[in-house]
Amino acid sequence: MTELGIAMVGHAFMGAAHSQAWRVAPRFFDLPVRPVMSVLCGRDADRTRAAAEHLGWAEAVTDWKSVLDRDDVHVVDICTPGDTHAEIAVAALDAGKHVLCEKPMANNVTEAVAMAEAAERAARRGVRAMVGFSYRRVPALGLARELVSRGRLGKIHHVRAQYLQDWIVDPAAPLSWRLDKEKAGSGALGDIGAHVVDAAQFILGDTVREVSGTMETFVSERPLALSHSGLSGTASDRTGPVTVDDAVLFLARFAGGALGSFEATRFANGRKNALRIEVNGSAGSLAFDLEDMNVLQFFDGTEDAAVAGFRRIIVTEPSHPYVGAWWPAGHGLGYEHAFTHQAVDFVRAIAAGTDPVPSFADGLQVQRVLAAVEDSAASRTWQQV
Amino acid sequence: MTELGIAMVGHAFMGAAHSQAWRVAPRFFDLPVRPVMSVLCGRDADRTRAAAEHLGWAEAVTDWKSVLDRDDVHVVDICTPGDTHAEIAVAALDAGKHVLCEKPMANNVTEAVAMAEAAERAARRGVRAMVGFSYRRVPALGLARELVSRGRLGKIHHVRAQYLQDWIVDPAAPLSWRLDKEKAGSGALGDIGAHVVDAAQFILGDTVREVSGTMETFVSERPLALSHSGLSGTASDRTGPVTVDDAVLFLARFAGGALGSFEATRFANGRKNALRIEVNGSAGSLAFDLEDMNVLQFFDGTEDAAVAGFRRIIVTEPSHPYVGAWWPAGHGLGYEHAFTHQAVDFVRAIAAGTDPVPSFADGLQVQRVLAAVEDSAASRTWQQV
Amino acid sequence: MTELGIAMVGHAFMGAAHSQAWRVAPRFFDLPVRPVMSVLCGRDADRTRAAAEHLGWAEAVTDWKSVLDRDDVHVVDICTPGDTHAEIAVAALDAGKHVLCEKPMANNVTEAVAMAEAAERAARRGVRAMVGFSYRRVPALGLARELVSRGRLGKIHHVRAQYLQDWIVDPAAPLSWRLDKEKAGSGALGDIGAHVVDAAQFILGDTVREVSGTMETFVSERPLALSHSGLSGTASDRTGPVTVDDAVLFLARFAGGALGSFEATRFANGRKNALRIEVNGSAGSLAFDLEDMNVLQFFDGTEDAAVAGFRRIIVTEPSHPYVGAWWPAGHGLGYEHAFTHQAVDFVRAIAAGTDPVPSFADGLQVQRVLAAVEDSAASRTWQQV
Amino acid sequence: MTELGIAMVGHAFMGAAHSQAWRVAPRFFDLPVRPVMSVLCGRDADRTRAAAEHLGWAEAVTDWKSVLDRDDVHVVDICTPGDTHAEIAVAALDAGKHVLCEKPMANNVTEAVAMAEAAERAARRGVRAMVGFSYRRVPALGLARELVSRGRLGKIHHVRAQYLQDWIVDPAAPLSWRLDKEKAGSGALGDIGAHVVDAAQFILGDTVREVSGTMETFVSERPLALSHSGLSGTASDRTGPVTVDDAVLFLARFAGGALGSFEATRFANGRKNALRIEVNGSAGSLAFDLEDMNVLQFFDGTEDAAVAGFRRIIVTEPSHPYVGAWWPAGHGLGYEHAFTHQAVDFVRAIAAGTDPVPSFADGLQVQRVLAAVEDSAASRTWQQV
Repeated sequence: MTELGIAMVGHAFMGAAHSQAWRVAPRFFDLPVRPVMSVLCGRDADRTRAAAEHLGWAEAVTDWKSVLDRDDVHVVDICTPGDTHAEIAVAALDAGKHVLCEKPMANNVTEAVAMAEAAERAARRGVRAMVGFSYRRVPALGLARELVSRGRLGKIHHVRAQYLQDWIVDPAAPLSWRLDKEKAGSGALGDIGAHVVDAAQFILGDTVREVSGTMETFVSERPLALSHSGLSGTASDRTGPVTVDDAVLFLARFAGGALGSFEATRFANGRKNALRIEVNGSAGSLAFDLEDMNVLQFFDGTEDAAVAGFRRIIVTEPSHPYVGAWWPAGHGLGYEHAFTHQAVDFVRAIAAGTDPVPSFADGLQVQRVLAAVEDSAASRTWQQV
Repeated sequence: MTELGIAMVGHAFMGAAHSQAWRVAPRFFDLPVRPVMSVLCGRDADRTRAAAEHLGWAEAVTDWKSVLDRDDVHVVDICTPGDTHAEIAVAALDAGKHVLCEKPMANNVTEAVAMAEAAERAARRGVRAMVGFSYRRVPALGLARELVSRGRLGKIHHVRAQYLQDWIVDPAAPLSWRLDKEKAGSGALGDIGAHVVDAAQFILGDTVREVSGTMETFVSERPLALSHSGLSGTASDRTGPVTVDDAVLFLARFAGGALGSFEATRFANGRKNALRIEVNGSAGSLAFDLEDMNVLQFFDGTEDAAVAGFRRIIVTEPSHPYVGAWWPAGHGLGYEHAFTHQAVDFVRAIAAGTDPVPSFADGLQVQRVLAAVEDSAASRTWQQV
Repeated sequence: MTELGIAMVGHAFMGAAHSQAWRVAPRFFDLPVRPVMSVLCGRDADRTRAAAEHLGWAEAVTDWKSVLDRDDVHVVDICTPGDTHAEIAVAALDAGKHVLCEKPMANNVTEAVAMAEAAERAARRGVRAMVGFSYRRVPALGLARELVSRGRLGKIHHVRAQYLQDWIVDPAAPLSWRLDKEKAGSGALGDIGAHVVDAAQFILGDTVREVSGTMETFVSERPLALSHSGLSGTASDRTGPVTVDDAVLFLARFAGGALGSFEATRFANGRKNALRIEVNGSAGSLAFDLEDMNVLQFFDGTEDAAVAGFRRIIVTEPSHPYVGAWWPAGHGLGYEHAFTHQAVDFVRAIAAGTDPVPSFADGLQVQRVLAAVEDSAASRTWQQV
Repeated sequence: MTELGIAMVGHAFMGAAHSQAWRVAPRFFDLPVRPVMSVLCGRDADRTRAAAEHLGWAEAVTDWKSVLDRDDVHVVDICTPGDTHAEIAVAALDAGKHVLCEKPMANNVTEAVAMAEAAERAARRGVRAMVGFSYRRVPALGLARELVSRGRLGKIHHVRAQYLQDWIVDPAAPLSWRLDKEKAGSGALGDIGAHVVDAAQFILGDTVREVSGTMETFVSERPLALSHSGLSGTASDRTGPVTVDDAVLFLARFAGGALGSFEATRFANGRKNALRIEVNGSAGSLAFDLEDMNVLQFFDGTEDAAVAGFRRIIVTEPSHPYVGAWWPAGHGLGYEHAFTHQAVDFVRAIAAGTDPVPSFADGLQVQRVLAAVEDSAASRTWQQV
């Protein structure tokens, strides 16, 4: 096989990011097979056709099921809201299609279990599944994981992980599907909290064991959106209820003994996309902020105190994860590059016949953490994951 | 009265800081009465005499009670470990001496109640009491409070408050009295956690209503210290148990509706004195880090988004709190200046016949927050303050 | 016309960047005509064919002249070393092809004059020419220009402009063509100094009038490169002379009265790609660093001093230059996005029948500044531009 | 001798800073002799008496010459405007008094030569002289020098040194004596430019050999000041000419081969006290900014590139210069601490019978650099120092 036919479902924000990934990956990375942007699936025929044209997909269809028995489609790439992930993913895997599924993997644990089981069935037949926790592929976070796994931080004592945004701090911001529990499953928790849970666990190579959390909806009623889009839209005169959390905070204990403090909010005025992670260990520390995404701060606690300090590593050296394929040192990457890296790793795993990570089992585990946080917020006690 | 006789009890780290404050305050600020460094009280005669000489106190005594009936002593300044605060403060207030007491005000709520009651009795007779939460007097935190109280942040949604140090991350660091529950009451919680609780409440003008916390002692046995000092010392061959927390984390809800995330730790490798506070409100945000103490970050959410951003305000303008008495704009202050400001405010309140803040009632309230955190950590549920 | 056929000459670092621009531009921006990656021109048939395959060009040729009389080629995009720019650009313009030429536009003023004259001739026939000072299209620098042109900085007093790299600080780094005066014209001066001259003039909307400079070659002999590439390569046993400057510094006076301090060096250890610009005016200031390229620092001097400070504007708002076509606020762009913006502006100008900027006249003016710096360094006096 | 009697001349900004130094030095540092704040000299009897009272000097006199034959005065500390330095310093040294003289040492080279000669005469009799380049005693700059002198930066290629302020960017700011060439000698050049010249030479352990500079007075006429003070004052209706430079820029070549870029300005809007120095060497780099004065940035170029980055060293470790006498790690120092360190070093040198640095010969050398810059600005050519 020299070509890998892709069918993508959904064409909003994530659809544009994934399209860019499929388009660009083979131009910078040596790939064993060439991804082909074959089919775009959407609900509305006109809009899907226009999106396919704009994003560069060969064909547009309105029924995602129609791609499942096409021989020229090898991958189903799921970029829809969370309430549809389980159905599409299970069907695609059972039909023998490799699946890349956006995060959060599902809207609840039950769905996630079904997906993980489908992935396990599929794996036995050589069919691969992966969850789109794209930030793992930001080079600075890859380097963070490397430093931890090589022991440069020693035993981990602390993780501080926050995802701070402010896109709905204005009470007049309209209701998006992301504020509707039916569509989105949860609010800040699943949308951005899932990212920090995955990122923290990825960097530590450890899992959250128990949590104590609290959730809040600061603005409970908002104008209905006339036009529907992920992050913005025009407001109508009528209002509707916000059925998800605006913010969530939780304490965590990791299996390996580290203490974690997590927060995800859409009400941190002035923070546009601040996924921030700090890790403190017996031998050193790390700090990262997605708003300065090409940088990793590293403190080496084994150095002479007179010259020790947090180093601002510009993660653009050829030796850094994924970087060698791009530009010379000092030439920064942007948001969408992580999606390209994700596509590269997924294609390579398929070609190599190995299971890509994060797997659906990893996605399920994150879902269990999110569920434990919700349970904890409701019961006002600690909950095991 | 033109002079205010001071008797200071204790002459270690805090004693040096308070001495500098009494010495310097009248040289930069116009004070209605002149503080006189009259008597230094310590346990060991030789060491107290040497300290008095070095720090510039006129006299050295070994019995703090001896100062209570001296007419030339008007203020008792308590810089001893927490287990002695209550006895000294109550006795001094009852003897008609104004009292400045280092934080944490006491080692438990019972002691703090007794102290607050003594302060209330004393206030009726015009005798003043104040707790030494010195960081309130860092100009940047004063400016933070001003911005919040003027409504520049709108309704407060989030507080993130951390006090990160690393002075005992090395398991070979010896047992200090600060690791002994009998002397210190608690570990990171009372020593540095108390500071962030006070600072957050001060900035918000609001109080913590309930908490959910967890505590940890990462290193439970340490070498005994041959010589005894606050933050360092020589290690012996024998070891002893650490009886306090190395780290504490807690979630909080404020009376006014804000969500808080608090952390205090002595195990954050590379963080030397990082008291960090972020506040997010409906109209703006603030961020502060004591490691860059002359700076306050401010985001004005009411500005045109195209030119909005966190501003690095260098808090050295004449119009900033306390700053006019010092140097021209841009000339930074250091750690001990906050103690000078504290002395200034205390002296002025005494002269004006008003009650200084933070009062002993404020100190008691912080103590109740700390106690609720301990209860919560033990019961694994939320606790009311 | 609905398609714009592109022929690109050269396929190294700049060729890859331009390819990405042509590939991506129509996927994010609405373009009046669609660029088609038609022909790649290179010297070596095999390497050019491989590059065309990898970068996505339909055809590969070894004689760039062959594209000049092809009807399906409308644009010649010049990505070769500087010694070939003049010949290719003049021939292409005279043949009626629109030309996008990488910077520095030429290796000396004589060549640049010929190019500017050719562009002027071409413009009369509706044929467009543009120089690739791509950094103008970094959104933060676009915003900088907007703020200056709207008067937010008042009268400009100071410009500090540096381009600091460290890629040859190691004396064992091999001789690249960039260190060969015949190929490159000059060293740091033309390669990166040209960028800061253009960026400073662009932001100010003003031109350098006179300069006083000095140049230095710290390492005058280097190993010959076995393999030839832009920024790295394998060293041989034999050495050859470095015939260009490693570093250049110059003072400048702008026509409008501002003072400038410029520096370009490849010996600033630890600075990977630090194009830094600061502008101070009577009403405000700006600061930019390409190592944090999605940020512009802005100081508004008209604000109340108590809340004034340099603001860290994250230049990812929909209202910022070019940004609306990409991702939601807070999702950063990378190095190559500026090339995409450049392609967009070039295509739009061609379609609109307007002259794109920076024009070849602009490129000539920068070349005159570079020449004046060289003259000044040789004569040790100020030189008019 | 156990006491060192000090007579200080002048009691404005610098007088307050030096008073604090004499007051505080013996309380934190072990000094071989105790400085005594004996006599304050000023021109106006009432104001001098009030200043002596406020600043803590035992006595106030209006004739500085009167202290020269007093046996209880051993040191003359000169804090007056530059036009009086030479007369006072020469007389004091010839009278056998140790002299600490504020910078710039003199208003021109002639005066500085006379002072250096007087210091040399005095040294033969065991009488000491020192110039008040206080910033050498900021711990971060002391650490910078240590790192360079230990070879951690290798061979030095570049120095970038700026002193940026904005205190007269407003054209309505009144004429201070600092804008009067008769009193101040020069403007930004001598006042703050002298600091960066000294700091750069100090860190490098090298001297400027030749310069090419330019100077500018942006606002040539200003309101007369009704009240006279160093940095501010009330404006009158009448105006007068500014006779000094508002800004100066110069390129420099050091004896050891480094290239320097220097700038001093009072028109950098938003920069309050930004003395910034960057040094790039073959093995590493440094960066410092006085607006974040407890921090030194250090890049170690010998490290593995994958983990190399500028380290933010918080220069508050016990092993850092001067720091051990103050507070625990992480507790920052302020502006005036450098003056205390200066007093400590001066007292220790006197007691040890050694010559303190920076000597008057060092001060003269800085004066020669300033003069060469002025000559270069006038002649528009490079000038030897």
